[in-house]
Amino acid sequence: MNYKMIARFMSRILLMEAAFMLPALIISAVDGVGDAVFGFVCGILITLAVSAVMGLISRNAQLKFYAREGLICVGLSWIVLSIMGCLPFVISGEIPFFVDALFETVSGFTTTGASILPEVEKLSRGILYWRSFTHWVGGMGVLVFLLAFSPGGEKGIGFTMHLLRAESPGPDIGKLVPHIKDTAKILYILYVIITLLNILFLVLGKMPFFEAICTAFGAAGTGGFGIKNDSMASYSPYIQNVCTVFMLLFGVNFSCYYLVMLRHFKSVIKDEEIRMYFGIVLVSIILISLNIRGLYPTLEETIRHAAFQVSSIITTTGFATTDFDLWPSFSKAIILCLMVVGACAGSTGGGIKCGRALLILKSLRRNIHQALRPNQVQVVRNNGRRVDERVLRNADAYLAAYVVIIIASFIIVSLDGFSITTNFSAVLSCFNNIGPGLDAVGPTCNFSIYSVLSKLVLIADMLAGRLEIFPILVLFSKSSWKPR
Amino acid sequence: MNYKMIARFMSRILLMEAAFMLPALIISAVDGVGDAVFGFVCGILITLAVSAVMGLISRNAQLKFYAREGLICVGLSWIVLSIMGCLPFVISGEIPFFVDALFETVSGFTTTGASILPEVEKLSRGILYWRSFTHWVGGMGVLVFLLAFSPGGEKGIGFTMHLLRAESPGPDIGKLVPHIKDTAKILYILYVIITLLNILFLVLGKMPFFEAICTAFGAAGTGGFGIKNDSMASYSPYIQNVCTVFMLLFGVNFSCYYLVMLRHFKSVIKDEEIRMYFGIVLVSIILISLNIRGLYPTLEETIRHAAFQVSSIITTTGFATTDFDLWPSFSKAIILCLMVVGACAGSTGGGIKCGRALLILKSLRRNIHQALRPNQVQVVRNNGRRVDERVLRNADAYLAAYVVIIIASFIIVSLDGFSITTNFSAVLSCFNNIGPGLDAVGPTCNFSIYSVLSKLVLIADMLAGRLEIFPILVLFSKSSWKPR
Repeated sequence: MNYKMIARFMSRILLMEAAFMLPALIISAVDGVGDAVFGFVCGILITLAVSAVMGLISRNAQLKFYAREGLICVGLSWIVLSIMGCLPFVISGEIPFFVDALFETVSGFTTTGASILPEVEKLSRGILYWRSFTHWVGGMGVLVFLLAFSPGGEKGIGFTMHLLRAESPGPDIGKLVPHIKDTAKILYILYVIITLLNILFLVLGKMPFFEAICTAFGAAGTGGFGIKNDSMASYSPYIQNVCTVFMLLFGVNFSCYYLVMLRHFKSVIKDEEIRMYFGIVLVSIILISLNIRGLYPTLEETIRHAAFQVSSIITTTGFATTDFDLWPSFSKAIILCLMVVGACAGSTGGGIKCGRALLILKSLRRNIHQALRPNQVQVVRNNGRRVDERVLRNADAYLAAYVVIIIASFIIVSLDGFSITTNFSAVLSCFNNIGPGLDAVGPTCNFSIYSVLSKLVLIADMLAGRLEIFPILVLFSKSSWKPR
Repeated sequence: MNYKMIARFMSRILLMEAAFMLPALIISAVDGVGDAVFGFVCGILITLAVSAVMGLISRNAQLKFYAREGLICVGLSWIVLSIMGCLPFVISGEIPFFVDALFETVSGFTTTGASILPEVEKLSRGILYWRSFTHWVGGMGVLVFLLAFSPGGEKGIGFTMHLLRAESPGPDIGKLVPHIKDTAKILYILYVIITLLNILFLVLGKMPFFEAICTAFGAAGTGGFGIKNDSMASYSPYIQNVCTVFMLLFGVNFSCYYLVMLRHFKSVIKDEEIRMYFGIVLVSIILISLNIRGLYPTLEETIRHAAFQVSSIITTTGFATTDFDLWPSFSKAIILCLMVVGACAGSTGGGIKCGRALLILKSLRRNIHQALRPNQVQVVRNNGRRVDERVLRNADAYLAAYVVIIIASFIIVSLDGFSITTNFSAVLSCFNNIGPGLDAVGPTCNFSIYSVLSKLVLIADMLAGRLEIFPILVLFSKSSWKPR
């Protein structure tokens, strides 16, 4: 194991995190909130100190990176980032209890958006900004950011495809351009552009600038931290609809936007995952609208709430304009299933991902055919191209890991004694990086009800869900730490 | 497609079913219950008539059976058996509504044990016997019975491994002896012996003979239809403990009993699936006992109820001595997970099966290792022997089909508007052939609350669960019915 290289990597990541905290520090200073300023100053200094120590350890590190180091680096850096990231919350005293602050930070970076705060409006603006910013950078990926904008380039930090693969959501990663550094840059530039458009449209709807930035961060990362206690319920229908559209856009595979830029419209329209994604959204909105039509005064309001909640859940954002825990069972069942499916691969959303679900379904159909005609060789195709057997096997293995982790988490969380719906939806919501669940963790409630043990389990679930399980699982595998 | 061969097969199966109804007819006649006698006479005559028609159609059938015909035959014969089997219920007027009677019969043959009857004690003895007998024959398999005891032998009905494989539970089937007819015979003889032992032990506990037969049928098939409204709650602790032991025994792979007969004790004790099965049982009993210790007056009663419910659920029997819906969330969560795991492969129990769960876990571990060292070839072993990649892929595909069917069923059943826990546990319970669920379908409730649509979905789930999905799925696949 190349420990020095891992330390060098941590050093870079933490340096970057300290820089990320600066805008929040400035906002706190401008607002004159002393405790928050103290929190961010301490946070930045401690992060810089740890980064310096790591830098010292890693002198003379060999630039050799294998799959094992890549996976471990990704898992570890997300854990270290979260621990450093929660320091301002704790030190400023705005979220004094460490596990709560860690829950909030992990929920931020993993773009879950589940909160332990009963009243978010009490927080100062600097803290609110930092909380929402974790969504934005966590959505597209911290390592991807480092790769895109660090001066040394991919060689300087020994970056390889292993790292990008481990942090990017989806069953398979396609390089947009030959150099991965350029791929990462393109992804982030597209991300910035769409985020700016989102802010623009929100400000046009008379949303205050600061609120627009935080809301756009939450939508872009498909995170869901709001800055109001009632999430998006008190905003105008225009703003709610803008959010619906942008949440859906951030759930699309970003390589599609690159294809649009290159004017390859046809291959975007014909993409099977995109079709499945928008198909599920459309069908869900229609079914839920029919099911809840008696609950709202007008048809417009019914469809608006249905569309907002469907977009919010399938993209795993977690904003809410209405309490869907009060909807009838059928609509709640659809919501639960949307939680599992998730957004497109290569987007900022969580869940199993439409693309992977598609592969699992196709692999299943192949198995039925194979049972009927055992001697025929059958090939699975996606967008007309043959899918590698290894990708198929990984998709199935992903589902298996998914089921096993959900069952184990569900049992442990049940120790706290809340209802089955509460516990099951809490685990689903955290693991799929959504935010709200049902019943006692519904859209109007929060996760402060759980014990420390349950919070730690849910923290692990959020990380495993965001990093697609394996980078977290390998941290617990003996053979990760065995010498070669 | 060899339609004639399928018809010939149906003809044999129905002839057998008519013979199975005779004892129930005799009991009804002895008890002098006119309506039930009429029901069984009509049931037998209609079944014989359909069998005769099928026999006429299938003259000159070619004895050629491929995988496709095998799968379709299994799926179709279970559907036809259930339709004919529910005739006595309907015609006698004891379950007058057809869909209810079909639900009850499918629940019987698939050894689910979910009932739509609020008061089972109202039924006549002949009807009760038939209801419990469907468990017994459905448990070990109707086609296996036909294979074992039909005079023509495997050649006479064109029997192949395809059929046995499709009806037997588990990821892989091992022939005990070279001829499959002899394998089937050995299985049924062992089954009869253990059932008789069960009856003996129950009668020794002063249970009336008729009740002992019905209870043993329910335990042997891991079915769970009781003959009392309160299931097993009013029986003595001795009888409850006898049931606990025999339910566990019927959840063991029957090939183990054959190995015990041959004095191969070592290979039974070392069998990984057996160890996992009893390990899960033991851990669950301990955890639940600790969790519910305050609910019952004595430690003996606490452990007895915990052991009974754990055995009943993991073997997917569904008998109950207490209302576990009143237990704390942690115990209910364990119960829900036991529902999913199920008994051993090659037993009469349902669920994913311990053996398949073991394969899924091992395959997952392999994938983690593979992610760490992409260039090493890794092999999965079971009981020291290398597992074929196809078997592994099928286990993963099974899980995928399992998740997809449960999600789809859950959404449709939710249309009726009951709670999420009710709907989710109802689907899990039917699909895994258990019987009771939680909340509104808990141990003291029944499935009569659901609409006709939901009942039909649950009927399909029970069949798909018992036949391990594929024989039912292929009935809906276009390519099953396409000519070669």
